[in-house]
Amino acid sequence: MEAACEGAGRGDAPEEKEKQHRRRRPEEPSGGMGERGAAGRRAAAGAPPGGGDSRRGAGDAAHPPEGGDFRCHRLQDSLLSSASGYSNYRGILNWCVVMLVLSNARLFLENLIKYGILVDPIQVISLFLKDPYSWPALCLIIVANVFALAALHIEKRLAVGSMSEHLGAVLHTVNLLTILCFPALVTLAVTSITPVGAVFALGVHTILFLKLFSFKDVNKWCREKRQAKAARTRSAAGSQKANGNVASGAVAYPANLTYRDLYYFLFAPTLCYELNFPRSPRVRKRFLLRRLAEMLFFLQLMVGLIQQWMVPTIQNSMKPFRDMDYSRIIERLLKLAVPNHLIWLIFFYWFFHSSLNVIAEIMQFGDREFYRDWWNSETVTYFWQNWNIPVHKWCLRHFYKPMMKKGAGKWVAQTGVFFASAFFHEYLVSVPLKMFRPWAFIGMMAQIPLAWFVGRFLQGNYGNAAVWISLIIGQPIAVLMYVHDYYVLNYEGSQ
Amino acid sequence: MEAACEGAGRGDAPEEKEKQHRRRRPEEPSGGMGERGAAGRRAAAGAPPGGGDSRRGAGDAAHPPEGGDFRCHRLQDSLLSSASGYSNYRGILNWCVVMLVLSNARLFLENLIKYGILVDPIQVISLFLKDPYSWPALCLIIVANVFALAALHIEKRLAVGSMSEHLGAVLHTVNLLTILCFPALVTLAVTSITPVGAVFALGVHTILFLKLFSFKDVNKWCREKRQAKAARTRSAAGSQKANGNVASGAVAYPANLTYRDLYYFLFAPTLCYELNFPRSPRVRKRFLLRRLAEMLFFLQLMVGLIQQWMVPTIQNSMKPFRDMDYSRIIERLLKLAVPNHLIWLIFFYWFFHSSLNVIAEIMQFGDREFYRDWWNSETVTYFWQNWNIPVHKWCLRHFYKPMMKKGAGKWVAQTGVFFASAFFHEYLVSVPLKMFRPWAFIGMMAQIPLAWFVGRFLQGNYGNAAVWISLIIGQPIAVLMYVHDYYVLNYEGSQ
Repeated sequence: MEAACEGAGRGDAPEEKEKQHRRRRPEEPSGGMGERGAAGRRAAAGAPPGGGDSRRGAGDAAHPPEGGDFRCHRLQDSLLSSASGYSNYRGILNWCVVMLVLSNARLFLENLIKYGILVDPIQVISLFLKDPYSWPALCLIIVANVFALAALHIEKRLAVGSMSEHLGAVLHTVNLLTILCFPALVTLAVTSITPVGAVFALGVHTILFLKLFSFKDVNKWCREKRQAKAARTRSAAGSQKANGNVASGAVAYPANLTYRDLYYFLFAPTLCYELNFPRSPRVRKRFLLRRLAEMLFFLQLMVGLIQQWMVPTIQNSMKPFRDMDYSRIIERLLKLAVPNHLIWLIFFYWFFHSSLNVIAEIMQFGDREFYRDWWNSETVTYFWQNWNIPVHKWCLRHFYKPMMKKGAGKWVAQTGVFFASAFFHEYLVSVPLKMFRPWAFIGMMAQIPLAWFVGRFLQGNYGNAAVWISLIIGQPIAVLMYVHDYYVLNYEGSQ
Repeated sequence: MEAACEGAGRGDAPEEKEKQHRRRRPEEPSGGMGERGAAGRRAAAGAPPGGGDSRRGAGDAAHPPEGGDFRCHRLQDSLLSSASGYSNYRGILNWCVVMLVLSNARLFLENLIKYGILVDPIQVISLFLKDPYSWPALCLIIVANVFALAALHIEKRLAVGSMSEHLGAVLHTVNLLTILCFPALVTLAVTSITPVGAVFALGVHTILFLKLFSFKDVNKWCREKRQAKAARTRSAAGSQKANGNVASGAVAYPANLTYRDLYYFLFAPTLCYELNFPRSPRVRKRFLLRRLAEMLFFLQLMVGLIQQWMVPTIQNSMKPFRDMDYSRIIERLLKLAVPNHLIWLIFFYWFFHSSLNVIAEIMQFGDREFYRDWWNSETVTYFWQNWNIPVHKWCLRHFYKPMMKKGAGKWVAQTGVFFASAFFHEYLVSVPLKMFRPWAFIGMMAQIPLAWFVGRFLQGNYGNAAVWISLIIGQPIAVLMYVHDYYVLNYEGSQ
């Protein structure tokens, strides 16, 4: 096949032949118009770029650079044919990012043209306050201190033995139930409380409930340990007196039962009580300022996106819902999914990274694991185990493991955790809206069959994509359900 | 810091201590509710899942699983803090894909609700035919054979020496200029030709022009080589007669000057002539059928997308253009960018992968490198060198390198290539539309400053993103310009 024009290269110098050979190597790119690499190679070969190639023979000057047989094709497959074995598509990631940015820029512009600027910071205040002389949410939060102090006093009595374990357990249960019921009843009874204010107050009480539950459990474990040790010490006929490691500065039971210790725990960004929290050595001022700036910026951004993007989209969804126009409902749902998901992502960063790190930095709280890499989740279970570590840790320590210890099976315990989680989701939505609908509860409980399905049928990137789809689509369904019902309940009659 | 409840773990068996230690290792995940990994580890440790852990001591049974000091926190940074050193965000790629699919699904649904089904295969025929008794585009394509045969006959005369090189060059130039001018003049003169039919006919003539240009050049090089060899043979006093490698089955000059050889080249998926094209050993039937199916499917898809998505968007853009409403123009531009880009991507695959591979497979043409990995381009130059290999190869072989040989500088030669490319882009758009506007020409020439800018200021992924943006945004700008001007010229007066 070589040398089509007979005698090609016969009279050429060996140096020229080597050059031709090098040009024909399959792995070498075929130069390029002004490509830097080609220019560099030419420069390295010592040949001047352009004419006047003095080292070449007279006959050679007329030849094209392909060599004497004028070849410029070779047997090869297209890159996208499976036979080529090519697989470098890293540019596609950049393509995805560019397409997402551009299409969302367009949506943003379309929204601005359609609605003008809807962002109104003053309106935010009205979400918290209906009547400026009545601050029911704030009052509820101040009252919460009573429950915390009650729990501390019960524990103090239990520690010195002036109250039986049984009575202590009953009092703790009453106290904890009151924490959940009292604000709920107040919210349902007081008319001047706004839904947003009520969510805030109920959220604080839910956190307090989980914290005091943990506080009671850990103190009980400490007493049990103390008793077991006392029994061992008695049987060993008391030789050593006080244990040496107290000198290391660690707090030991019952020295932890102080106001200072309790309030450190109540403000610390964790739901699990511990006698000696790990502490960071110092407050990093630059870190703190950066997180604070993020906190303020993302809060504004979330409020702006909700006012500008979510509210008009939701308002536009009411008509299709009333008419039961399914294709339009799906269109509205997908339209709502994008801002809802972006706001959720910003909320995640704002709450779990910026805000909790600010609190932790100020309190020199050492454990900053508020989330793990849930964005890589390949199963629904992995997502729930990793996106909200404070709650996950609490569930594991105070709910799942005690249930397993009492003889419950793995599936029963897991379902129990989802059930408790579903209860709190419902509690935080239905009570503030004063409207009992099972959507949040169903949404949480639907995670169990979803987890089974994804775990059973989808692996790797497919599982990851399924988790993302359930996040992106699942939330706006629940949001639309509640908004629709709230709208029907509160505004339909007045039309 | 260890052992907060004094004496913790003192009475424990060494085995239990080792277990506690293992649990506290920082790299180990903290279990999970029903997580498979955790269950597996528990099973491997031999402990039954649930209660009845008979191997533990009496005092230990009451302890929570964290170990004797009830620790569940440790000093650590959040994953998103730069201090954590974490960088696994592979889930984000799936997120991008899911978001793109969902937002485009919504756009598709919105479009269907708004316009209904606009796809109409019959309408496609009307794009090619205005008057069913007049087929000007087809006639033009049939006439194209004349130019090819003319070129072959000039070459035959030149090969036997019955025509001077100078006369041959003049005749070739006249022939090549006629190939470009004749169909353009016909298109401008004949009223029954449609824009789509004219693009098709002009495209065929442009390809023929490039092919015959290459044909003439290569034959000239062969004659020069033959002369140089003859001169050498005379000076060496003619010892060997015919060269042996002719026996290898390769065609040698002037045996290539046949109808069969010329028509193989004219139909082959390349623009560069060569005496002996690499041939694939056999026609792979499954490969051919798959490419054919792709070809038909993507053609339908492109037509459908244009009718359903492009046309309404462009029609909606005319009003903002008339009113010079800039924010709406940008919104329309971004709206048009998505379908335009998708159609361009489908066109790329349909033409460069499916169609050219079908032709190559049927003709057993071996070189299937019709494109390289332009999707990874980090510079604009790399994109232009790699997305259309037949044209790039032709430019390099018959334009850039000859110019360099004649002493032109790198930048002059490169600008010349872009200039030629700009000319052909303009030729293929302005003539069929019978409307001379410089937009395609400007678009191509703008690549030179763009290439300089991207190469100078943007590296790696930023460069790649810049190339994508220029592709996604640049094309619809040109499309809107032409459509707007065409609309004003043809429909504005009739309103």
